[in-house]
Amino acid sequence: MSSEIREQPDVFRRILESGREAIRSVVEVIRARQPRFVLFAARGTSDHAALYAKYLTETVLALPAGLVSPSSMTVYGARPRLEGCLFVAVSQSGASPDLVEPLALAREVGACTLAVTNAADSSLARAAELHLDVLAGAERAVAATKTYTAELLTLYLTFTELAGGADPAVERLPDLAREVLAAEEDVARLAVRYRFADQIVLAARGYNYPTALEAALKLMETSYLVAHGFSGADLLHGPMAMIDRGFPVIAVAPGGAGSGALRPVLERLRELGADTLVIGDRSLAPLSTVCLPLTVHLPEVLTPMLAILPLQQLAWCLARERGLDPDRPRGLSKVTETR
Amino acid sequence: MSSEIREQPDVFRRILESGREAIRSVVEVIRARQPRFVLFAARGTSDHAALYAKYLTETVLALPAGLVSPSSMTVYGARPRLEGCLFVAVSQSGASPDLVEPLALAREVGACTLAVTNAADSSLARAAELHLDVLAGAERAVAATKTYTAELLTLYLTFTELAGGADPAVERLPDLAREVLAAEEDVARLAVRYRFADQIVLAARGYNYPTALEAALKLMETSYLVAHGFSGADLLHGPMAMIDRGFPVIAVAPGGAGSGALRPVLERLRELGADTLVIGDRSLAPLSTVCLPLTVHLPEVLTPMLAILPLQQLAWCLARERGLDPDRPRGLSKVTETR
Repeated sequence: MSSEIREQPDVFRRILESGREAIRSVVEVIRARQPRFVLFAARGTSDHAALYAKYLTETVLALPAGLVSPSSMTVYGARPRLEGCLFVAVSQSGASPDLVEPLALAREVGACTLAVTNAADSSLARAAELHLDVLAGAERAVAATKTYTAELLTLYLTFTELAGGADPAVERLPDLAREVLAAEEDVARLAVRYRFADQIVLAARGYNYPTALEAALKLMETSYLVAHGFSGADLLHGPMAMIDRGFPVIAVAPGGAGSGALRPVLERLRELGADTLVIGDRSLAPLSTVCLPLTVHLPEVLTPMLAILPLQQLAWCLARERGLDPDRPRGLSKVTETR
Repeated sequence: MSSEIREQPDVFRRILESGREAIRSVVEVIRARQPRFVLFAARGTSDHAALYAKYLTETVLALPAGLVSPSSMTVYGARPRLEGCLFVAVSQSGASPDLVEPLALAREVGACTLAVTNAADSSLARAAELHLDVLAGAERAVAATKTYTAELLTLYLTFTELAGGADPAVERLPDLAREVLAAEEDVARLAVRYRFADQIVLAARGYNYPTALEAALKLMETSYLVAHGFSGADLLHGPMAMIDRGFPVIAVAPGGAGSGALRPVLERLRELGADTLVIGDRSLAPLSTVCLPLTVHLPEVLTPMLAILPLQQLAWCLARERGLDPDRPRGLSKVTETR
């Protein structure tokens, strides 16, 4: 897991250098179909990448989007009408039946189907009309890291290409990722603070809401911490009641409008005396107990590919701190097959 | 909160007796528009009702559906193209700006807009082309109970009416709800078991996945328990690692295909030695540590309106057991305004 975390700058470079031709061909086909809405199907880590792409669909493509509940089709046998739909399944392994079946069905009923996987030779890739390989290389750790950010970047390039082109700042991602990862020692020191934490809440808004969910999943998988990711707005609608003095919260706020929208949540947390780690802009330090500065001079839409990096490191460091083996989470295997 | 929980059979009866004409008129307008997909916007408890309606859209209407991320519009200024869209906002109070703004915008760009609220005289109701009052009567407790089930039933009647008509079994809901609520003493005894629990996981699949999420929210709001609701499939994709011997889990499985799909999850939990309370069919008792029998002879799609009842009671009883006042959750107010 540790070496796969460190590979991410190279994976970004590989996608930017070798992945774009495939993305352009796929986009040509999608554009010709003129989709009117986009559906995503995914599980686990890839579901967080799909949620990021759902935001992109709404903001960049200005199209409505939804995350499919696979059980509607696999458990209840729903046969939705999907003309005019772009159906995107995201999966590291491309193996889970509850993604392959809905995608195959979507193709049957006329949707344009795209599989985004790290496994070109998978059932999901074969079932789809279109396929994009996220080029992360073999991922051996059970807890997905480089396949997550590779999915994010591949989806970003695909959806911005559909809308006319990526922001040129995307070229700086490999270097910026390397810089962010270089702060590993600061993260390791922070991990010590959570040695005896039983639970934690992660909060973010907008493009980085998937970052909060994915960081929570990493902490659950590797450190067995009961970690709960929330959109800042949802946190205010009820769950805030469980937060009391000293309750650990991590807020992901690496700049932009999403971080601005998180400010009222941080103010509320401060009133409650929560222990808040802000990963983001230094200007939020007065609202936090601890601040891990992460100021990336990038359009906000690109920040999820960087903001997750220290959180992956935190999950790894905390597992080690607790005497656990982050490469062998108990009870999990690399490919999860659900129906 | 306690008396509002007990009012639910009467609310069901009121909706069935007095709500259907309004539903029929609304459905006539929607049908004439021939929506091709449905978007839902909601927060907190109402978001769980919206998720139930998303399943209904996929299974009963056979249309694609999505839950809107309000921040796309309110934080990032997205202006999606929504011709052919039915846009449904669900909210007890009808007051949160991050629902009113997206709905108003959706209406501007050509969507058919429906507000489902318990407040006919709210900004959300006024902003929408169509409005349905869920007829729950004034709800005073901060933790929503009767407005949740009233939203579920109103959405069920609306979407099945669109598809040709409700299952006649829906008429039995008020009586069945009364029967389920009568087991309050069993629930109170169960609540004692969780007196010193710090965290809990709730799991379900399909139509009752919203039940798991809503029960988790009630437990967070009233008992300050760190409660995390999962789809059984998502639980297998990673979070299962944090479950060890004695970890408390509540599984909602009141029959039907969704409960069947939960079986592999229960088997895995049993292997891990988790402390599993199954609310559902007695046949699952061998897979559970404790079983609260809830066998309702109803089509599965109607069970979420009953399965949540003992879980509302559990949240109330556990708060009392912990010396907390479930009517005054710390730090919350009845109307939450987020942007």
